[in-house]
Amino acid sequence: MISLSDNREEMLEIIGESFKRADIIIVTGGLGPTKDDITKDILGEFFHTGWRWDEQALQMIKDYYEVRKREPKEINLNQAYLPDECETLYNEWGSAPGMMFRKEGKLLVSLPGVPFEMSNMFEKFVLPEILKSFNPAQILKHHFLTINIPESILSEKLSDIEDYMPPFLKLAYLPNLNQVRLRLSCFTEGEPEAVKVFEHNIQKIRTFLGNAIVTEEDISFEEFLYNLMNKHKLTLSLAESCTGGFVSQKFTAIPGISTVYMGGLIAYSYDAKSDILGVNMEDIKHYGAVSKEVVIQMANGAKENFKSDFAVAISGIAGPDGGTPEKPVGTVWIAVSGPDGTISEVHHLPGSRIRVIEQTFNMALSMLRDEILKFITPLN
Amino acid sequence: MISLSDNREEMLEIIGESFKRADIIIVTGGLGPTKDDITKDILGEFFHTGWRWDEQALQMIKDYYEVRKREPKEINLNQAYLPDECETLYNEWGSAPGMMFRKEGKLLVSLPGVPFEMSNMFEKFVLPEILKSFNPAQILKHHFLTINIPESILSEKLSDIEDYMPPFLKLAYLPNLNQVRLRLSCFTEGEPEAVKVFEHNIQKIRTFLGNAIVTEEDISFEEFLYNLMNKHKLTLSLAESCTGGFVSQKFTAIPGISTVYMGGLIAYSYDAKSDILGVNMEDIKHYGAVSKEVVIQMANGAKENFKSDFAVAISGIAGPDGGTPEKPVGTVWIAVSGPDGTISEVHHLPGSRIRVIEQTFNMALSMLRDEILKFITPLN
Repeated sequence: MISLSDNREEMLEIIGESFKRADIIIVTGGLGPTKDDITKDILGEFFHTGWRWDEQALQMIKDYYEVRKREPKEINLNQAYLPDECETLYNEWGSAPGMMFRKEGKLLVSLPGVPFEMSNMFEKFVLPEILKSFNPAQILKHHFLTINIPESILSEKLSDIEDYMPPFLKLAYLPNLNQVRLRLSCFTEGEPEAVKVFEHNIQKIRTFLGNAIVTEEDISFEEFLYNLMNKHKLTLSLAESCTGGFVSQKFTAIPGISTVYMGGLIAYSYDAKSDILGVNMEDIKHYGAVSKEVVIQMANGAKENFKSDFAVAISGIAGPDGGTPEKPVGTVWIAVSGPDGTISEVHHLPGSRIRVIEQTFNMALSMLRDEILKFITPLN
Repeated sequence: MISLSDNREEMLEIIGESFKRADIIIVTGGLGPTKDDITKDILGEFFHTGWRWDEQALQMIKDYYEVRKREPKEINLNQAYLPDECETLYNEWGSAPGMMFRKEGKLLVSLPGVPFEMSNMFEKFVLPEILKSFNPAQILKHHFLTINIPESILSEKLSDIEDYMPPFLKLAYLPNLNQVRLRLSCFTEGEPEAVKVFEHNIQKIRTFLGNAIVTEEDISFEEFLYNLMNKHKLTLSLAESCTGGFVSQKFTAIPGISTVYMGGLIAYSYDAKSDILGVNMEDIKHYGAVSKEVVIQMANGAKENFKSDFAVAISGIAGPDGGTPEKPVGTVWIAVSGPDGTISEVHHLPGSRIRVIEQTFNMALSMLRDEILKFITPLN
């Protein structure tokens, strides 16, 4: 992947080099209406092509503006003026059409840089075209999301398995704080022997890691918890202090979460903790807001107020300021309240504000997972 | 910028090409302890160097594990085995040291790929070295963060100014939903004439854009609002439904926000809206949770419960499910309650769940800005 600036000479050089190296070239960005967007002109130049007005693109641009109750400007309409040789890729969500060029059995696709426009058009037009025209070899993949085992220990544990892996298998370690995602890839054209070896290695890794595996689906930790709680009809609420809504927005990014997630309180002030969650103000003053006593009451208060089965509460000092010698920056209390009671843990987390928040998120999810599993296991 | 996979031949080729093209090459990633991390070996091979044990790196790795109350494994200690020719860059936050190589007046730096380790070491070691050894030309930059004017209209408005700009000035448009950040860059070695032209153009753009400019600092919209509220000793609370904590976590990512932000409620369930925010349950049932009546009560309830000067409430349908013919996906009500009353607006936002959430965030901030400016203007 190469990123470069909107510079004519560099772009022509890199497109030329890419054509020598690759069969499929995907170019993103530089299709906007403004003067700094030059990709369309460069591609016209590269392919030595004439130009045309694309009537359908013109209509889509007009429709785009009509829906938004605005008049398209001349520079917007100009976005429908396209190189003669390209196939037009229509854009449902923006005014810039994409372009598909073919040359000597190779494919160059130009898409807008706006992420949701790009990914929509990629899935709709580009991926089907690649599958149809290039019939690519399949790469089989299997994921293991692990928790609370550092990458180096995982690697040491798995080295015996890795040493015996054939070259068409590849194990990648994708660490993210205290989560490590393992991705086992199998480069094959579907030979049964290769698939068998792949599956055998999946089984070996599974047996070896045991409980450390959160899920073998290619989903996030929070999606795993949502699926688990949804399946068992359990509900969740949150009381966040130092994470400030980070945990909540991770959960609410999951479509359909409203069957599980009842709501959350971001209790930044003492008053919010006391008035809304019912934390004893004397305890806040005596033990401090970042304390076992307060975080347990926050979890219990959230569970009660939001009428949920489980509640997670977080109170800590994310920094960069606010630390004291007894409670330095990175001190975080987490409590999980469930049908069978409330547990709490303190963590001392290194790093910047956002890193403390991200680690707290992972720790909280890990505690919540343990409590849910404890609760549902006898029911299974 | 080139990204490539952990493949020996490709890495050697790209490092060689980069050395021909550039004076400074920064390589990130591939320094972990596991078998798929090969950058250190490749660099040793590229520079034809011997190897050494770096005693100080060894000590840092041991300290790193001691703080975390773990034993370093052999593969961790091996991270202190470094190419002879490199200068070691010590890593405060991880176990992988960085490396700095010099060759024919050029510089190659290898840093860990973990973002916070990389950026810390870049600022501490690499940037000072570049400034010292290469004495780079300064690029002057000026930012304008604009709101509610589409990129194409901005561009048309500014085309007269752009047409008269000399080639050493460059105006970039960085759009993000209904925000556009304009960046005027001046490529100069400090000639007074160039600086004068740069400042003259800043003034022309400023006059032209007027009220559409949120801030000319290189900060986010939410940081601008925090600075504004903090300066005027105003406080904020939130009541979020469909944005699920997104707005809250954007604000709480700002260090020091607790002087302004009192807290927020994520009211996913009817009960939370009614019990905690005091929204009339009859109104929820009669008008629906996504309605003017409910969102106004949510804002008022948040302002009262969190004892803040301003409150923003959001209730909408982010999708992909939950829409109805009367209230399709993308329907979002936003209310801002301030010392002088409560206003509300409905928006119909296109796109995916996360896009609806992001657009809502921008709309809410824009409304909040207007209300704060109305309130403080007579005080100024």
